[in-house]
Amino acid sequence: MSAALIEALRDCLGPAHVLLPGEHDLSGYERDWRKRYAGRALAVVRPADTAQVAAVVSIARAHGVPLVPQGGNTGLVGGGVPDDSGTQLLLSLQRLNRVRQIDPANLTMTVDAGCVLQQVQQAARDAGLLFPLSLAAEGSCTIGGNLATNAGGTQVLRYGNARELCLGLEVVTADGTVWDGLSGLRKDNTGYDLRDLFIGSEGTLGVITAATLKLHPLPLARMTALAACDTLRDAVALLGLAQARCGAALTGFEVMNALSLALVGKHFPQLAQPLGPRPWTVLLELSDSEGETHARTQFEGLLEDALERGVIDDAAVAETLAQSHAMWHLRESIPLAQSEEGLNIKHDIALPVSRIPDFVDRCDQLLAERFPGSRLVDFGHLGDGNLHYNVQAPEGTAPADFLRAHEAAVNALVYDQVVAHGGSISAEHGIGQLKRDELAQRKSPVALQLMRQIKQALDPRGLLNPGRVV
Amino acid sequence: MSAALIEALRDCLGPAHVLLPGEHDLSGYERDWRKRYAGRALAVVRPADTAQVAAVVSIARAHGVPLVPQGGNTGLVGGGVPDDSGTQLLLSLQRLNRVRQIDPANLTMTVDAGCVLQQVQQAARDAGLLFPLSLAAEGSCTIGGNLATNAGGTQVLRYGNARELCLGLEVVTADGTVWDGLSGLRKDNTGYDLRDLFIGSEGTLGVITAATLKLHPLPLARMTALAACDTLRDAVALLGLAQARCGAALTGFEVMNALSLALVGKHFPQLAQPLGPRPWTVLLELSDSEGETHARTQFEGLLEDALERGVIDDAAVAETLAQSHAMWHLRESIPLAQSEEGLNIKHDIALPVSRIPDFVDRCDQLLAERFPGSRLVDFGHLGDGNLHYNVQAPEGTAPADFLRAHEAAVNALVYDQVVAHGGSISAEHGIGQLKRDELAQRKSPVALQLMRQIKQALDPRGLLNPGRVV
Repeated sequence: MSAALIEALRDCLGPAHVLLPGEHDLSGYERDWRKRYAGRALAVVRPADTAQVAAVVSIARAHGVPLVPQGGNTGLVGGGVPDDSGTQLLLSLQRLNRVRQIDPANLTMTVDAGCVLQQVQQAARDAGLLFPLSLAAEGSCTIGGNLATNAGGTQVLRYGNARELCLGLEVVTADGTVWDGLSGLRKDNTGYDLRDLFIGSEGTLGVITAATLKLHPLPLARMTALAACDTLRDAVALLGLAQARCGAALTGFEVMNALSLALVGKHFPQLAQPLGPRPWTVLLELSDSEGETHARTQFEGLLEDALERGVIDDAAVAETLAQSHAMWHLRESIPLAQSEEGLNIKHDIALPVSRIPDFVDRCDQLLAERFPGSRLVDFGHLGDGNLHYNVQAPEGTAPADFLRAHEAAVNALVYDQVVAHGGSISAEHGIGQLKRDELAQRKSPVALQLMRQIKQALDPRGLLNPGRVV
Repeated sequence: MSAALIEALRDCLGPAHVLLPGEHDLSGYERDWRKRYAGRALAVVRPADTAQVAAVVSIARAHGVPLVPQGGNTGLVGGGVPDDSGTQLLLSLQRLNRVRQIDPANLTMTVDAGCVLQQVQQAARDAGLLFPLSLAAEGSCTIGGNLATNAGGTQVLRYGNARELCLGLEVVTADGTVWDGLSGLRKDNTGYDLRDLFIGSEGTLGVITAATLKLHPLPLARMTALAACDTLRDAVALLGLAQARCGAALTGFEVMNALSLALVGKHFPQLAQPLGPRPWTVLLELSDSEGETHARTQFEGLLEDALERGVIDDAAVAETLAQSHAMWHLRESIPLAQSEEGLNIKHDIALPVSRIPDFVDRCDQLLAERFPGSRLVDFGHLGDGNLHYNVQAPEGTAPADFLRAHEAAVNALVYDQVVAHGGSISAEHGIGQLKRDELAQRKSPVALQLMRQIKQALDPRGLLNPGRVV
């Protein structure tokens, strides 16, 4: 069976693009980059185009072999690496990397799924336009993976998730057929929303091979500011004020607690921290279609207003582009500083913005009671209600010991509070293998049943990324 | 069977809310408002809340009776009225009309499906916020219907369709279960996107009973302008310029051809037309978070720039709110003026913005050749690529005769060109009964197959709004 499969794949893709264990080092495909998941692939296949992807799916189906689609292998939930059975075919989309078309008058571009996000951003910029999806892994993640996981990032407040930035898809379905749903249309009410069903389904319903993406005009100026708040409630009030005064020009609103920036200070002391240690620091970004002067006036008006209302007690507006970048660099250094500090328990959660202060109060208190000395690194996209609420071992405790002893209990405590406050246990990272059991326990049974019915309908033999999501 | 069914429904809803033909005048439910579809209902049921909707679905299921959900009965494609078999139960959602909750800090509100759109807009405004969905039927359409059909309207350019304005749904599924997917979350990557699957499915996959909606800050000022363009190409160029200069402040961009405004002039001569007859007139709207002075400065800069580039040759900025309303009133009077002129063949189509000028050139030419004297009333939401490209009988020809002789051929010609230019045969009105056959012929067979698999999975007995969409 397996020999016939390999032969069929080689006939289809050429021998150079069917990589076998033993013959090749497959660890770059088999292990996720955080080294949390390490599986074994039956083989790694590297199709060159949509037709080859469809052929691979058909061959796998004929042989009853499960497929794991993979983009840049930068996922955080083990959704794109094979399990350790050695029976799953890893389908790498990386060779599908053409920018197919840019249509500036329609503000769209069509790209292969394997295009790296940075390449997509750059192609848009070369056409004088903006593709706003932006996240830490942008140098290696692929747009297909971004769509399969409905990636978020730092510009969601204004431009939405990957879902909102996509107008159309090309997908290979479970039976090896190509659905050409590429479309540059902003309105199309002709039947069920297949596009949004595939987006975020993590390769379990079909394999995304290309997408038509929404572009935006490039703002004339981008400007960043930091503001200091005493409480998270003040930060929420500042968000409301900023949204009312700046409208859609507000493109970033990130929050960082004291420990987040303290760890950055400890591990990256060379990075300047303009406001010094404060309970909460907010990073604001304006993207202005009029220019720098207008953006500065807007920021000054907002921050003066916020100072007068007592919502903030200090602020710094970047004077130069370098200062803007330095402010973002502080924010982006938090995950690295955390890693330097040692293993920790990550929670990528979303809540209604209005309930975030209560959630954090309550959850902080419960964690302090049950796990004395545990330290909370709390930061994220407050504008989207998305917190990275991460628990670090007490100082002086070996992080690995703390995790071994308490990770499950910490997760249970945090997720209980998330659910109690109307939140989501996965805001932007997805489910994959990591949260599948958690999802089965916490998602509404009705929703789970609907999801299973859909999975059964579109992949009746269960060959697409089995063991993920549902 | 039928007597037992009626008794079960009466037990559940109370006799006053089970309306039977013969006993009651059901024409307001059985006939669509354009009087294109007139069916006969087995009965009209008017549940009071979600639990009663679930009970009705369960009862109908037990009796094998099909259901047709209906909101404000303002649809344009016959999606919400029963067929003429007398076997379908009409499920009116109008009594589910509570605003359940407004959360200003989260910029969300949760409402029953039967709330009238205007009531939703007003409740948001009372909280100092904006619910931007806006369309001609807003005084009687319901938000549930808006979501079931993914309604569009005049603010889509900035705020999106109904789909983009919804964060969560409550739905009664085909087996009578309630899915509580109400959520005030802007990010939630926990499985398949059930919300977007139900939105736009026109009651064929489940019955929407409530929704959590996205609100926006109220802009401080709204201002409108008219601009005259020689060609549709110039109007597309003006759109690009306006988007680049004004960013998200550009909330309206409507185009009207000469005949559209000539008919308004003929049938509503009391309405002032500031620019006089021009080949193309564009209506632009800015929503400004800074105020009127800023909006005016923005408009003046844009229009001067456009004049210098030769993209427009005249423009008028509204000096007062009354003038703004008068400009919008011109645009909104086109459908009425068309009705006054007589029956016509309507096309609610979408195209990539970049291809609209070619489409209109080509289609105008073909229609002139094949149907000499036919007149094109061409207007719509150019910013979204959405045209209402309507064909009026030649002057002096009886419209009814023209339609009888040519409607099918005109539709075929127009839809052929729509498809050839990468467009959609239903931009914002949906499919319903009206375009079901057209869809079956023109949508990709792969997409149709996927849609049928989903319908089969979620409504295996085919009792939800049968004969619509798929």
